[in-house]
Amino acid sequence: MPDTPPCPTPNLDPTADLAITNVTALVHGDGGSIEFLDDATILVKDGKILSVTAGPDVAPSDGVAARDVARDVALATVTIDGRGQVAMPGLINCHTHSPMVMFRGAAENVSSSDWFNKKIWPMEVNLTESDVTLATRLACAEMIAGGTTTFADHYFMMDRIADVVDETGMRANLGWTYFSSEGAAGFDRGLSFALERNASASGRITTSLAPHGDYTVNDDDLRRTAAAGLEHDLLVHIHAAESRIQTRQTRALRGISPIQVLDSTGILAGRTLIAHGKGVVPEDLPLLAAAKGRVGVGSAPKGYLKVGEETTPIRALLSAGVAVGLATDGAASNNTLDVWESMTMTSLVQKFVEQDELWMTARQVLGIATTGSAAAVGLAGVVGSLAPGHQADIILVDLSGPHTQPIHDLAATLVYSARSADISTTIVAGRVLMQDRRLLTVDLPSTMSALAPRLAQLTDISHGKSIQDYGF
Amino acid sequence: MPDTPPCPTPNLDPTADLAITNVTALVHGDGGSIEFLDDATILVKDGKILSVTAGPDVAPSDGVAARDVARDVALATVTIDGRGQVAMPGLINCHTHSPMVMFRGAAENVSSSDWFNKKIWPMEVNLTESDVTLATRLACAEMIAGGTTTFADHYFMMDRIADVVDETGMRANLGWTYFSSEGAAGFDRGLSFALERNASASGRITTSLAPHGDYTVNDDDLRRTAAAGLEHDLLVHIHAAESRIQTRQTRALRGISPIQVLDSTGILAGRTLIAHGKGVVPEDLPLLAAAKGRVGVGSAPKGYLKVGEETTPIRALLSAGVAVGLATDGAASNNTLDVWESMTMTSLVQKFVEQDELWMTARQVLGIATTGSAAAVGLAGVVGSLAPGHQADIILVDLSGPHTQPIHDLAATLVYSARSADISTTIVAGRVLMQDRRLLTVDLPSTMSALAPRLAQLTDISHGKSIQDYGF
Repeated sequence: MPDTPPCPTPNLDPTADLAITNVTALVHGDGGSIEFLDDATILVKDGKILSVTAGPDVAPSDGVAARDVARDVALATVTIDGRGQVAMPGLINCHTHSPMVMFRGAAENVSSSDWFNKKIWPMEVNLTESDVTLATRLACAEMIAGGTTTFADHYFMMDRIADVVDETGMRANLGWTYFSSEGAAGFDRGLSFALERNASASGRITTSLAPHGDYTVNDDDLRRTAAAGLEHDLLVHIHAAESRIQTRQTRALRGISPIQVLDSTGILAGRTLIAHGKGVVPEDLPLLAAAKGRVGVGSAPKGYLKVGEETTPIRALLSAGVAVGLATDGAASNNTLDVWESMTMTSLVQKFVEQDELWMTARQVLGIATTGSAAAVGLAGVVGSLAPGHQADIILVDLSGPHTQPIHDLAATLVYSARSADISTTIVAGRVLMQDRRLLTVDLPSTMSALAPRLAQLTDISHGKSIQDYGF
Repeated sequence: MPDTPPCPTPNLDPTADLAITNVTALVHGDGGSIEFLDDATILVKDGKILSVTAGPDVAPSDGVAARDVARDVALATVTIDGRGQVAMPGLINCHTHSPMVMFRGAAENVSSSDWFNKKIWPMEVNLTESDVTLATRLACAEMIAGGTTTFADHYFMMDRIADVVDETGMRANLGWTYFSSEGAAGFDRGLSFALERNASASGRITTSLAPHGDYTVNDDDLRRTAAAGLEHDLLVHIHAAESRIQTRQTRALRGISPIQVLDSTGILAGRTLIAHGKGVVPEDLPLLAAAKGRVGVGSAPKGYLKVGEETTPIRALLSAGVAVGLATDGAASNNTLDVWESMTMTSLVQKFVEQDELWMTARQVLGIATTGSAAAVGLAGVVGSLAPGHQADIILVDLSGPHTQPIHDLAATLVYSARSADISTTIVAGRVLMQDRRLLTVDLPSTMSALAPRLAQLTDISHGKSIQDYGF
């Protein structure tokens, strides 16, 4: 054998698993400003964003040399041509009850009180674990098709929901709802679930403690929740200051506001996600400001219009430093799990209620949809931005439709002209869950076939029972 | 030759040109109530609806025998299987400026005053006839894709818009905008256009007189308009009581409200289509009630939210017997020409401003979207209902998407869950303009290619000129 040295093995690292080329990328500038990078290349490795660079072949930023990008594109396992599309961080639904899609449209034209007491809570008596599994599959199909990559869920039988999150490839923060009316069992089950399933599904599942609300969970249980949340560094996801009526009732009963209840029981000392927050009053703002960096509010404007009530006072919350995120609530009240629609409506409704056409611009609400929502669900720095090191939760928005042409102001096009149906591709942790509007991880027809024979029984309330009862 | 009689020719009349089978049809019951006919067959002949019957093969209503329906389906030139879809009357856009799609997103984050005076009116100086033609093609593409079959247009160079309506197969009521600042030329051109093009495009084009507004057209010209409208039985389409600010300014200047101006100049004595009507005040209602059957209001709720102002007082208008219809205004303010979106927002926003969750139900707004809008544009009995003798303007809505499943309440599914992207098929006067979301009468790519090089010049306002100026 001749004594020649072996040829050097070319170093192929870092090779991307996924490359998105020729795309316009929504990125965050200094101070979180929304910027667009044309002709960008996005490289993904091990489920995370490796780089986002401008120009297909030119010298990029972020310290990645041009030849590396070109080489990584060539070697990537999957390459998606993003021409004519915008790449954005996947949308984040900061508060929902995903399986309630099974009740979509089943409780219309009723008062808020009747919606709960005469419709939803009696119907929820009928739920089986199989129903929750099937309905969550349907919800995940809707969310993936609508560009939602992360959702914060608050419901029952959350272990079944976690299984579906795992199987469909989505990301979620999951909290098993409990009421004090269940005794210790509710809290115990919620905590066990949170500890068992946290960081599961390859890290895509995080968990929270999910006391139903400050008026359905007593102070002892709220204190227990706060202590466990701090001990295990868990988010507490709770309905609070849901409406002005709820705030008035809590004040009448207890002399303090719902947010003051959260403060006095220690909830605000930990990480907190408040659903709705429509009933936040001025004296709550210093308490919320003191929890800055730990507290977020999920706002679901469509359902608020529909019940003819007020909306979340987002301007005041942002002024207090509260993270505000987009939400849909459940489809039994909101009729869709469409976070894009929430984004559009948040801008429009905030302008309307503040009587200020210069407030909540397209760029402001894109900030809320991305980094704002990530912070609200406790995932700042993890999702919500197409920045190196963040999870590769990416959606591609096709702007070739007549309703989005021409483009004079891309932020305005996205917020006021585009809609969730324009999303062509949904990626979570680098895995493509929808491509060219084909769902790759949910079999929708078989899900609907299995759910259909259950619908009549699910909405049957002739049994006269209810899972809960309250007075507003 | 044997002396045998000739065989009798089978009577194949009435044979349908188009049959839609297995569809769920939205029909109007007694008193205009919204009803759904499952497993329906819709037959179309000579551009009109021949029959809408329940069951594919069973004895139908409307005096059409079952065998006739089956035979007509078999003999129809075109048959569309509507399984899993809802057939509805095509949507009607009661007030728009269709070519303004060319300015979509070009005037964001400005006050209402700056929107007009610093953006739109200076930009409109740049318009050429070719721009209007191309932009109207784009607008028609968007409207057909969004299920709009009729639009009421108020703009300049309306002869070019009429040509595009003719070529794309849409239905429209067209009025050439005029200001008194143009002298007699404006009114004369508007009247000439209205007379020349009325009933053109095989009757798909009707025309109106289109004085810009009660504050930009003087009383003499309004009286002249009213007289010509009565003489030629033309609709008068006018911006009036556009906002509370406009009403306040008109009152301050003249001591009367905008609607009182319409009354005193004789406009309300004829057929009138009022754009917006947000500034209607209580003393206007008796005047509008006296014009019942002749007066309609087009409401475009999305843009009203966006400018942070009030919305149309629909409850008061309906109580006065005014026909209320859905509109989008132009895409420069509304960002879309999506009448479906207007339908959804009308229900939601009306509930919100009236603080009444039981008001403006899904069925009520479906009435506004169909017969209400038809009446507002002066086409009651012609379009807006899938009833025999009405024009065959039909859309099919595909409800198989995850966001529209399951269906517990079809009206709610349509209004709160479905969106215009779910419309698969758009038919005007029996002609299919979009099938399976493919546009058949507009070449969108070539339209956009031709418009693209004009965009920079269209939005260039360095010339310092303006087509008009006013103070709010």
